Amino acid sequence: MRITRRGLLLVLSSPSGAGKTTLARRLLDAEPGIHMSVSVTTRKPRPGEVEGVDYFFVDKREFERLKARRKLLEWAEVFGQLYATPKTPVVDALQSGNDVLFDVDWQGARQIKKRLPRDVVRVFILPPDGKTLERRLRARNQDSEAAVVHRMAKAAAEIEHWDEYDYVVVNVDVEKCLAELRSILAAERLKRERQSGLAGFVGEMLDDL
Amino acid sequence: MRITRRGLLLVLSSPSGAGKTTLARRLLDAEPGIHMSVSVTTRKPRPGEVEGVDYFFVDKREFERLKARRKLLEWAEVFGQLYATPKTPVVDALQSGNDVLFDVDWQGARQIKKRLPRDVVRVFILPPDGKTLERRLRARNQDSEAAVVHRMAKAAAEIEHWDEYDYVVVNVDVEKCLAELRSILAAERLKRERQSGLAGFVGEMLDDL
Repeated sequence: MRITRRGLLLVLSSPSGAGKTTLARRLLDAEPGIHMSVSVTTRKPRPGEVEGVDYFFVDKREFERLKARRKLLEWAEVFGQLYATPKTPVVDALQSGNDVLFDVDWQGARQIKKRLPRDVVRVFILPPDGKTLERRLRARNQDSEAAVVHRMAKAAAEIEHWDEYDYVVVNVDVEKCLAELRSILAAERLKRERQSGLAGFVGEMLDDL
Repeated sequence: MRITRRGLLLVLSSPSGAGKTTLARRLLDAEPGIHMSVSVTTRKPRPGEVEGVDYFFVDKREFERLKARRKLLEWAEVFGQLYATPKTPVVDALQSGNDVLFDVDWQGARQIKKRLPRDVVRVFILPPDGKTLERRLRARNQDSEAAVVHRMAKAAAEIEHWDEYDYVVVNVDVEKCLAELRSILAAERLKRERQSGLAGFVGEMLDDL
């Protein structure tokens, strides 16, 4: 017995240094029913990157064409390069009952929520405390104090949007935090409104009574 | 680090024969942070029943007084006896961050939702199919065919309200279903709006950055 359901979009945001990348990878490994969204980008492929796996690589003209035709769910410019989430694969996944994982900042989360409000589940991942976050950001940037200050300001700017999310988890322990993300995913899959096959399932049951 | 949160009210409904009583008991055993709501009733204590544990036993006059003073969250009459959920212990639990489990029918669920809409999480438990439910109801009532027919009609009437619930779980396997209930509880505890201490926690973090 398997009840048909609509997929969901699990959006993870956090300041860098909160462990989001590790958590996303662990979640994908643990949950075969959810896949990472593959972005479109105008930047050049790096050695080893595979078209359609790491990114869909397009030129600027093609990117603008996708945007104009409303084929992009969200988009952003980072260091002069354009990045976006193509809409078609996401809509296909939703309709076939597959879940999609997004690793985006608060602006991306807001855009996706606006376009597909009922399908989005937004989770914000917080670091245990400010000191820990600073230590992690310093460990990454051994180049200059200015770079660290910039990263800290960027992290703070991201954290300030914590209250636009449905769930908030604090990453003190990666195993505990992973278990929490898995609970959120499991619970959201059981939401009545997502289980599109329930009406038929209950109808058959009532016919048998 | 422990972030203060508001408790929640987990409401379980199902037709009889769907395994709700077993699931509720298993959930209480597995989750120390949630307790069963203790009802007020006008019926006489049965041997072994303890005041304040099984029920709060009151007379009809006291029951009516509680009702008139709006001290009851929901109430129902069953076989000429009155049953109700007293409001004060539930409100106290919510404020101290403790969760309360309710085993009520759709009418009770509706009343609790109306009184404390933001705190209620409603889960409907379905049996695997109509035939299984019928077999379970027959096994219980070996007295008369009329009693079985009555029970089946009552089960069907309860099932018809499945679409008033936030979550729907199908009890094919009790361990799987218990895990699903635990995921729902874990996820709902992580909802941003329930974590009342988050604003202060994030404020301190931002001060450190």
